[in-house]
Amino acid sequence: MQVETSYAEALVRKYPEQVAIAIAKDSAGKYNPITLGWTMITSGDPPMMAISVAHQRHSLGAIRQAKAYVISFPSAAMAEEALFFGTKSGRDIDKLAALKTATQPAKEIDCVLLADAVANFECVLEGEMTTGDHVILAGRVVAAHMNDDISVRRLYTLGSGYDMGAVAPAEV
Amino acid sequence: MQVETSYAEALVRKYPEQVAIAIAKDSAGKYNPITLGWTMITSGDPPMMAISVAHQRHSLGAIRQAKAYVISFPSAAMAEEALFFGTKSGRDIDKLAALKTATQPAKEIDCVLLADAVANFECVLEGEMTTGDHVILAGRVVAAHMNDDISVRRLYTLGSGYDMGAVAPAEV
Repeated sequence: MQVETSYAEALVRKYPEQVAIAIAKDSAGKYNPITLGWTMITSGDPPMMAISVAHQRHSLGAIRQAKAYVISFPSAAMAEEALFFGTKSGRDIDKLAALKTATQPAKEIDCVLLADAVANFECVLEGEMTTGDHVILAGRVVAAHMNDDISVRRLYTLGSGYDMGAVAPAEV
Repeated sequence: MQVETSYAEALVRKYPEQVAIAIAKDSAGKYNPITLGWTMITSGDPPMMAISVAHQRHSLGAIRQAKAYVISFPSAAMAEEALFFGTKSGRDIDKLAALKTATQPAKEIDCVLLADAVANFECVLEGEMTTGDHVILAGRVVAAHMNDDISVRRLYTLGSGYDMGAVAPAEV
């Protein structure tokens, strides 16, 4: 049975939740990653993915200027990177350099892939819509990459307070 | 290391993926559910959630007409409902009646909650954006509900071919 509750309390019931990292070249010329929980696929043909980015984030300006970005799905071993990329600002530091994160060049856009991620999708910005305190950015996927080690698993948020890790199928 | 691959093959690496069910009153007056994998939160203040719905779906017209809908996160025991609601059309049948799915009235909008879900969010449509073969619908959350049994867990897609079930934290 459903009981009415606060939005915040109901959201806690949604865990485990996915984690993504968006990367775009910023005005200083560096590739800047931001960790996001708010992402979805939004078209099959053409393939498109959407992310929600807060108005004040450095990444929003970077994506708008670059008009292209990578959506990377971190592996379960990348919890430190996910926390760091999501809580530090690219206005202040070079996040990829600070953690010596392994990258590879993207193929179709001027950006980088996260080498140890589960998968990376190169996107070209196609449109945006303001939604409250965030902006939805919708991009067309122009190239896809996956880890050559297919045993790596995705990273998820397991609960509030940045608790992150792997998940596996379970009995109900 | 990342290796370039097809979009479809890279997507398979994203599992487990979330499952949601959106419900809206249609032009026939019935509450029509549709199962969606493509959903995200898109604002904190005000609270907003977005879904992607294909142009040809009966639910798209229902949501646009009702201007309100419920986003429900099914429990792991609701795989049958999720598959049925995602593969049948409300143009042909009353999906909730067909499965005798337990519902409760929504509080703030003319809609229903799924009684056995993990959580339900009542949304008022605020905007939309076309993205390829889908439309992003962004709604403001006006009421939230959770299952009074906090042991119920969310349903996820575990792989391709409608393989669905629960997940739990796991070692890397």
